[in-house]
Amino acid sequence: MSKPIRVIQCGLGAIGQAAARLVLDKEKLQLVGAMDRDPKLVGRDLGEVLGLKRKLGIAVSDELTDADVVIHCTTSNFKECAAQIGKIARTGMHCVTSCEEALFPYYSHRAAAERLHEICVKHSVAAVGAGVNPGFVMDTLAVFATVVCQRVDAVRVLRIVDAGTRREALQRKVGAGKTEEEFHKLAQQKKIRHVGLTESLVFIADALGWDLDRVEEEISPVLSPKEVQTEHLTVKRNAAAGVRQIARGRRYGHEVLRLELQMYVGAPAPRDEIEIHGDPPLHLVVHGGTPGDVATPAILVNVIPRLIEAKPGLHTMRTLSLPHIT
Amino acid sequence: MSKPIRVIQCGLGAIGQAAARLVLDKEKLQLVGAMDRDPKLVGRDLGEVLGLKRKLGIAVSDELTDADVVIHCTTSNFKECAAQIGKIARTGMHCVTSCEEALFPYYSHRAAAERLHEICVKHSVAAVGAGVNPGFVMDTLAVFATVVCQRVDAVRVLRIVDAGTRREALQRKVGAGKTEEEFHKLAQQKKIRHVGLTESLVFIADALGWDLDRVEEEISPVLSPKEVQTEHLTVKRNAAAGVRQIARGRRYGHEVLRLELQMYVGAPAPRDEIEIHGDPPLHLVVHGGTPGDVATPAILVNVIPRLIEAKPGLHTMRTLSLPHIT
Repeated sequence: MSKPIRVIQCGLGAIGQAAARLVLDKEKLQLVGAMDRDPKLVGRDLGEVLGLKRKLGIAVSDELTDADVVIHCTTSNFKECAAQIGKIARTGMHCVTSCEEALFPYYSHRAAAERLHEICVKHSVAAVGAGVNPGFVMDTLAVFATVVCQRVDAVRVLRIVDAGTRREALQRKVGAGKTEEEFHKLAQQKKIRHVGLTESLVFIADALGWDLDRVEEEISPVLSPKEVQTEHLTVKRNAAAGVRQIARGRRYGHEVLRLELQMYVGAPAPRDEIEIHGDPPLHLVVHGGTPGDVATPAILVNVIPRLIEAKPGLHTMRTLSLPHIT
Repeated sequence: MSKPIRVIQCGLGAIGQAAARLVLDKEKLQLVGAMDRDPKLVGRDLGEVLGLKRKLGIAVSDELTDADVVIHCTTSNFKECAAQIGKIARTGMHCVTSCEEALFPYYSHRAAAERLHEICVKHSVAAVGAGVNPGFVMDTLAVFATVVCQRVDAVRVLRIVDAGTRREALQRKVGAGKTEEEFHKLAQQKKIRHVGLTESLVFIADALGWDLDRVEEEISPVLSPKEVQTEHLTVKRNAAAGVRQIARGRRYGHEVLRLELQMYVGAPAPRDEIEIHGDPPLHLVVHGGTPGDVATPAILVNVIPRLIEAKPGLHTMRTLSLPHIT
């Protein structure tokens, strides 16, 4: 067997911790370091931080140590992410990031993305933004499905998540339990918002070679028709059970892309549904949906072997060879 | 815009003709030649052969002419295919083939596959086996879906095709209308058989890093409970409406892979269904299924840009970067 790929986990939030635990399970990977700036974590043994019953002999550091790849889970914001990955690249390490805006940064942050690409090329490393949403169910999977199409006229994606089955932080994040007025206020302050829907949309458009005339995003509450109780909170009748967010892309005046995300307490029939209008038309459904809490760490870890063998530069999910479980 | 990729269509059966017509629709591709050994076709204008209302100024040849890529649709047999692709590679052309056994030839034809790989490397070209089944619905799509899994225990795929809606040749190929006895005889002679189910299975196993103890394939008729009439033929009560073919892979004594293909007249709820048992489990359904007649030419054409940019060698669908519509 070839030598394992040495991995550092950077960022020890929920997703970062789950990714680190998964790396420990993988024969092809070796966890060699962990970085976080939280003074409550720095210096502690990673095994303890991860809730394992054993020490790992890896102390959490507030500095980057040496490895082959960094799993980066610190921010949703591409500018912050780009600065951090730039640093990682300069030390000669590849990087996979959970930063939502990094899925396809060329639309909202073209200059910064191009700069990061050049840094990666210069230092002969590869970087990519990955995740489940954005990164898989509402974008990469749809793009991949088009390979069996002779022609694509439009793509529609619907993701429905029952927030009632998810952790408290997520229920709060989608505005469950807020009044309609509170919801709109928080949405305006961008405190209720799924980051990455526009990135999913422009990623698809770019893959299909479509120049869009217009890209729009809208957000609204899903109001509960009755009082609902979760393990963590109560949603009163007519209060927000969660969020509905829609991104639309128009081309030559027609809506050719429509991505709709519903995340609310009590959502029936959770699923990821992709409709491709074209020849042939395709209707693909992940029944029950793809659970982000488990699947996001998985995809971050599973792309690592593809990233290592890729050309130097800033990649997207569609410029790597077909990723799959490691 | 960069120069179009010059393409030759080799093999002018139904799939080859459909691929050639599709190439004509694609801006990034330019059809520059057509090859077929059928003396009834050689010398004729390709536009006429394709049933177009215009001449293309391309005469069907029984020899290879010059291009960047060859779309190869002549055989299901890897040994024949490897000899032909070897020739194509030696003239410096890339090749995508519809040969079913080429999806993953390293199981049944390892030595020939390795030899072809070396020839491709030596001549700096890339080759790959592609298609819808094998090539997409029962293998590559399942492998791709595992990227969101932390762990995979087993994969099951079910493809149900209503042969009653397909062309006559396919209805005959699946044995529709034969008596049970006739069916078994034809199946024994391998005249009723979907080629590539084992290749789909070992492709998945290889992607997941699984060494299988045993690989089995079985074939049986689906008997019709009542008389059914299609546009082309009659299936009497208790006669074969079509075929059920199952491939199984065992690992450490457990059945970890199971691919089942049902193609018969009157099949209800046609679909492609992938179940991944693991963490998370996934249940993915292409409702209505992926129609092979339209989708196979599509995938052959759509992988071309990925093939051109790939490293020299004999590829599989998972070693190319994520293919999608061209």
